[in-house]
Amino acid sequence: MTAQEGSGRESKNLPARELDPAVERLVRESFDKQGLMRLLGAAIAEVRSGEVSIRMPFKPELSQQHGFFHAGGTSSIADTAGGYAGLTVFPRGSAVLTVEFKINLIAPAKGEALLAVGRVLKSGRTLTVCQLEVFAEQAGKRVPVAVGQQTLMCLNEPGTRISA
Amino acid sequence: MTAQEGSGRESKNLPARELDPAVERLVRESFDKQGLMRLLGAAIAEVRSGEVSIRMPFKPELSQQHGFFHAGGTSSIADTAGGYAGLTVFPRGSAVLTVEFKINLIAPAKGEALLAVGRVLKSGRTLTVCQLEVFAEQAGKRVPVAVGQQTLMCLNEPGTRISA
Amino acid sequence: MTAQEGSGRESKNLPARELDPAVERLVRESFDKQGLMRLLGAAIAEVRSGEVSIRMPFKPELSQQHGFFHAGGTSSIADTAGGYAGLTVFPRGSAVLTVEFKINLIAPAKGEALLAVGRVLKSGRTLTVCQLEVFAEQAGKRVPVAVGQQTLMCLNEPGTRISA
Amino acid sequence: MTAQEGSGRESKNLPARELDPAVERLVRESFDKQGLMRLLGAAIAEVRSGEVSIRMPFKPELSQQHGFFHAGGTSSIADTAGGYAGLTVFPRGSAVLTVEFKINLIAPAKGEALLAVGRVLKSGRTLTVCQLEVFAEQAGKRVPVAVGQQTLMCLNEPGTRISA
Repeated sequence: MTAQEGSGRESKNLPARELDPAVERLVRESFDKQGLMRLLGAAIAEVRSGEVSIRMPFKPELSQQHGFFHAGGTSSIADTAGGYAGLTVFPRGSAVLTVEFKINLIAPAKGEALLAVGRVLKSGRTLTVCQLEVFAEQAGKRVPVAVGQQTLMCLNEPGTRISA
Repeated sequence: MTAQEGSGRESKNLPARELDPAVERLVRESFDKQGLMRLLGAAIAEVRSGEVSIRMPFKPELSQQHGFFHAGGTSSIADTAGGYAGLTVFPRGSAVLTVEFKINLIAPAKGEALLAVGRVLKSGRTLTVCQLEVFAEQAGKRVPVAVGQQTLMCLNEPGTRISA
Repeated sequence: MTAQEGSGRESKNLPARELDPAVERLVRESFDKQGLMRLLGAAIAEVRSGEVSIRMPFKPELSQQHGFFHAGGTSSIADTAGGYAGLTVFPRGSAVLTVEFKINLIAPAKGEALLAVGRVLKSGRTLTVCQLEVFAEQAGKRVPVAVGQQTLMCLNEPGTRISA
Repeated sequence: MTAQEGSGRESKNLPARELDPAVERLVRESFDKQGLMRLLGAAIAEVRSGEVSIRMPFKPELSQQHGFFHAGGTSSIADTAGGYAGLTVFPRGSAVLTVEFKINLIAPAKGEALLAVGRVLKSGRTLTVCQLEVFAEQAGKRVPVAVGQQTLMCLNEPGTRISA
């Protein structure tokens, strides 16, 4: 099976577009509604067109059994960064939904904070694919701790708008 | 590229083994050290040989922007259930590490609670593959909301023991 | 991010439906147009509602460097089995497209033949998720050699019909 | 679950190393033993330290039902490119094994040829993670058609050597 023409997955030439301040506001307002991000202590670090970064400082409540960041927290901010990266390139009034993601944990997630970066690789009418990267901040250095790939869906239907 | 003989991924005939109570204790003690599980309000529901279930009741702090369970929470308990399912079939003194996982979110994660089930599909000397399923409890019914697949690594090296 | 209501991913109660002979014909005609399946020597073993099996006998042209089945062949028939499993539950006139798949190679793929089974786990208006399994036939036994998970897209647009 | 220290996944500072001609020869000799690559008409385009490219010209035998490249062929060369990229950074005498891979098909795979590029993102003692990209050559342009992520295993055991 392979993608066909007319499938609505044509690229929209997304790079290098200036980010509309209204889009950044939309992303930040939506993020603020996510109870989980607040519980984890995560915050948006940067919003650009097709790229969103989320930072999560360490606290013991985020640990796994050995005291490092739990992969669940790592995955949570990676998924969220990718989702909002997608939202920045969607048409106004759209909502974003994670179809699936895959993540490799490539190094111990330890340090003062984690920084997740989601970046749109390809955006189509219905589906968008993002690259996910998570770095640990260790004494001023950024060490890659996870890499992933994510598929998002753009919803344009009435009743699925992110903001009222 | 394909798996070769002598690769240490031979199956260990895992099913139908009785679970040693010491293994269940090991799993529960390790789980209790995970700050993130406590933060999310997740608890072990069941430990069997090669299968672990984790339950997480809904609270607003677990939500995404529309009020449902955030996929990050869903993924966190799925990853943890798979990891401990693997640990139940590892040799004593081993530690478990998630190499990677992939998850599809197949329905809105809403309901009174989520139940994640991790199940060992194949266990080898070094690597173990688990199936992940997450169900939402909705008015007494269990609705599948996510399915995934996970690769674990078994660590036998000194200094990586899960419990002292 | 998590699936929302109204997203068009509602299940269609797919199991236990009788397979319309016209659907089986559609699947077989489409399969016969795949040059790659002929090149690999693969054939449809069975078509059921929501489940398709494809069998590929061993020949040296399918090998990797150690003489076993190459993971590329394993993946090719797994992807195709899942794609057609999806097609059996799509509305008439639809075409199927693989969005993505993930596959774990869990044992050496050696034997007289490989059998790939694709099975629909969840089908929605736009997206369908399949489970993929590949078995090696070794002296009368079926040994699991790969497991995977696949996301399909259903295309209903004019001009994307599978058969004329 | 999260990676721990002492897990054998420490990076080996792989970039910018000159490629030993003996390693390139090893890769090419191993590739030539793959029946499937010959059947598909694929050839190694380039071997660098931590990066291998494979090119596959179009022929009707590689098609899916709509006449484009079948995703199985796309995946086959992507997996192989990643596997040999890994092998270039492994210790001498090692063999490579694909643990798992995930691939998103982001555009119709049509054109004169496909070019798959596998690139090592992180290499450890046991496991290595690669990025996979596939481009279609269309009238002199390179169009991305697939992106993926792959986990490899390095085998050092006697009897698993790639070359005699």
